[in-house]
Amino acid sequence: MSIEPSPMRIGIAGLGTVGSAVLANLRLHGDRLALVLGRRIEVTGVSARARKKDRGVPLDGIEWFDDPVKLAASPKIDTFVELIGGAEGPARAAVEAALAAGKHVVTANKALLARHGFELAKAAEAKHVALLFEASVAGGIPVIKTMREALIGNEIKRVYGILNGTCNFILTKMQEEGSAFEAALAEAQAMGYAEADPAFDIGGQDAAHKLALLTSLAFGTRVAIDEIHCEGIEHIRRADIEAADELGYRIKLLGVALKTETGIEARVNPAMVPKDSAIGEVSGVTNAIEIEGDFVGDLLLVGPGAGAKATASSVVSDIVDVARGDCMKPFIIPAAKLKAHKKATLGSHKGAYYVRLSVHDRPGALASIAGRMAAHEVSLESIVQRRPRADAVAPTKASASGVMQLVLITHDTVEAAIRRAIKLIEQDGNIAGRAQVIRIEKL
Amino acid sequence: MSIEPSPMRIGIAGLGTVGSAVLANLRLHGDRLALVLGRRIEVTGVSARARKKDRGVPLDGIEWFDDPVKLAASPKIDTFVELIGGAEGPARAAVEAALAAGKHVVTANKALLARHGFELAKAAEAKHVALLFEASVAGGIPVIKTMREALIGNEIKRVYGILNGTCNFILTKMQEEGSAFEAALAEAQAMGYAEADPAFDIGGQDAAHKLALLTSLAFGTRVAIDEIHCEGIEHIRRADIEAADELGYRIKLLGVALKTETGIEARVNPAMVPKDSAIGEVSGVTNAIEIEGDFVGDLLLVGPGAGAKATASSVVSDIVDVARGDCMKPFIIPAAKLKAHKKATLGSHKGAYYVRLSVHDRPGALASIAGRMAAHEVSLESIVQRRPRADAVAPTKASASGVMQLVLITHDTVEAAIRRAIKLIEQDGNIAGRAQVIRIEKL
Repeated sequence: MSIEPSPMRIGIAGLGTVGSAVLANLRLHGDRLALVLGRRIEVTGVSARARKKDRGVPLDGIEWFDDPVKLAASPKIDTFVELIGGAEGPARAAVEAALAAGKHVVTANKALLARHGFELAKAAEAKHVALLFEASVAGGIPVIKTMREALIGNEIKRVYGILNGTCNFILTKMQEEGSAFEAALAEAQAMGYAEADPAFDIGGQDAAHKLALLTSLAFGTRVAIDEIHCEGIEHIRRADIEAADELGYRIKLLGVALKTETGIEARVNPAMVPKDSAIGEVSGVTNAIEIEGDFVGDLLLVGPGAGAKATASSVVSDIVDVARGDCMKPFIIPAAKLKAHKKATLGSHKGAYYVRLSVHDRPGALASIAGRMAAHEVSLESIVQRRPRADAVAPTKASASGVMQLVLITHDTVEAAIRRAIKLIEQDGNIAGRAQVIRIEKL
Repeated sequence: MSIEPSPMRIGIAGLGTVGSAVLANLRLHGDRLALVLGRRIEVTGVSARARKKDRGVPLDGIEWFDDPVKLAASPKIDTFVELIGGAEGPARAAVEAALAAGKHVVTANKALLARHGFELAKAAEAKHVALLFEASVAGGIPVIKTMREALIGNEIKRVYGILNGTCNFILTKMQEEGSAFEAALAEAQAMGYAEADPAFDIGGQDAAHKLALLTSLAFGTRVAIDEIHCEGIEHIRRADIEAADELGYRIKLLGVALKTETGIEARVNPAMVPKDSAIGEVSGVTNAIEIEGDFVGDLLLVGPGAGAKATASSVVSDIVDVARGDCMKPFIIPAAKLKAHKKATLGSHKGAYYVRLSVHDRPGALASIAGRMAAHEVSLESIVQRRPRADAVAPTKASASGVMQLVLITHDTVEAAIRRAIKLIEQDGNIAGRAQVIRIEKL
């Protein structure tokens, strides 16, 4: 006579589209998962704001908690699944309560991890419980498991990629259909990709949160969201997209983290990447992450960066890892051994740059600009002067009469030099609006 | 006072380039791995053919075994790492001995697993030990961990990709540099990619072994290498590469496994894929695998499919999983529950085909061919008749005077119909040599 092993009892807080998809997944695939694990996964408690809402998944027999913190600490669960979101408030309180009560935690909450990952990891380790967060970065792409487990035999040199599907959707629309930034953003919102307040996406903060987690996993450092340089795509215009296309590039919002001699360079910014590079060809809401390790070389993962079902796939993977008793440290090495994030010296990056200036069409302007560049030892590979369609640079007003678009491509130069030259050019008063400066990434 | 946990003691059999790279990896990254695991990984025994050979890694303090079977069963090891290769002989004997002795096994041996995976899985499960084989498929790409763990919450619909780097190198050389097949193969051999006897690579058997493992992992079936349809690239000529290019395709050796209504379709064959598809753009020795799951959607993994260091990365990942006590079933679900591989009805595939015929230039030949196609309800999207450069179709002699190259692209048609039509066309005597038939994959 065999003894039926006890099920793993989970509580899920947050029943939005992802939470509902997790419930649906565990119902649909429960029998197979039980076969894999030798024990069942049982949802014993849930918590959400609206009890009566129809989520398309029955909640019969599952205890309802109005307060996620109560669910987190309930003796009726072994594992707490946090799908509420947000760095503070109920999500943080519930996760802290769950860890304090010795529950394993699975979360999709990048903001919470990016802000409090170090403290939460310490709390989890103190209780010898798991804290897994695959779904917090790149939706259905198993980038965290890959870095934590598959590439464990590697010193990671660099990790970079497209980490925000909304931005990539907007940039793809601008490139493929000639949409203006505002129109592409409106379409992303209409399709449910962007948040109602899209600033977090297009400003690059969402990608920065994810990059902060990848940086920590890659380099064994404490999560340091405030050390991530962050620029968004809000200033990208069709003029830039078109110029990039002519030059053989695509503009992508990249998150890049790498080790340099002076420390860690971690930044989110729009970049020009070769059209025919693997990253350059990733279009729409798809995410892509390339990881470079000393033994594996380059590994590229491409897949759905968001979406309820894809994100649920990652959440369920974490739940199954917990049920199997797989309890790695949240950030691979013990939290106490994580090093402080030492930032690389700013501006030491050497590379080529794309510069677009709206130059007042008057004598001496071009000579002055060229002089500023030369004085900072920025040499130019190409200069293109043109008068683009009026709407291609809107809404910067740079297309007003008497203003020419000047596109410069530099030879490899130190970032600090180009930034200083541009600052002086802006002060000289020969250009309208801001200078557009975009890195060209060779990758 | 803390008690130092006991190290995990491993024995490595086979010290070729991969074995040496594993040793080098464990030396280089040993301290970090110990930090991750809370215990050290110690190589206590090795076995290889030539004891005196300089492998660039010191073997001091490691016990030497002339017989890998003795190493496998040695009481001084906990985990046996098999890097000998081959479906039978010492590799099989050693792995069986290790499992019988209750040792965990890590192996890179696709042939062994494809032939005896089911029995070995049963043996491992009987002893409650791990049998891990990440390095056996696609070198440094963690496709097995991804299917086994990351996508555990998915029903897998399809898995396909480029599984043999040598073939992809040859096809890339033919496409990019216009090399003849034989010259590209010679270059692959000179660079150490192809085996001295390259038949296993170019005949598709290597890819078929890997696909057999992926099929089993995807669909919960017993490994069935003999059920994998296998065609290689030995008949691909520059005429095909050039025609594909003109039509917007690349020729790739694909491994494809999917569920159909009648069973599992699993096949390795050259295929035309769109130039700008993710798979179409994978060049050189790189491997790429796309997995479609019901929740995750499409996930693509691209990376080094071979090479000592990349393969060692996968071997070390498995070793660390074992050291962590992560012991999943070799084929995800218990071996006893693996279903028999039920093959899909042959020829039921519906799709477009590329057909290249070397047609004798005489009255009625074209009409006869068109008639055979029509009689089998194969309708043609395009017909191109041309006389290619003499060497583009060598060595089929089809370019002899009086022979025209005829390239046909069919509309979607049932595979069985086109195969029957082609057979009759070959029997009619209007063509020289064999007909070249290549599937066009929409992907």
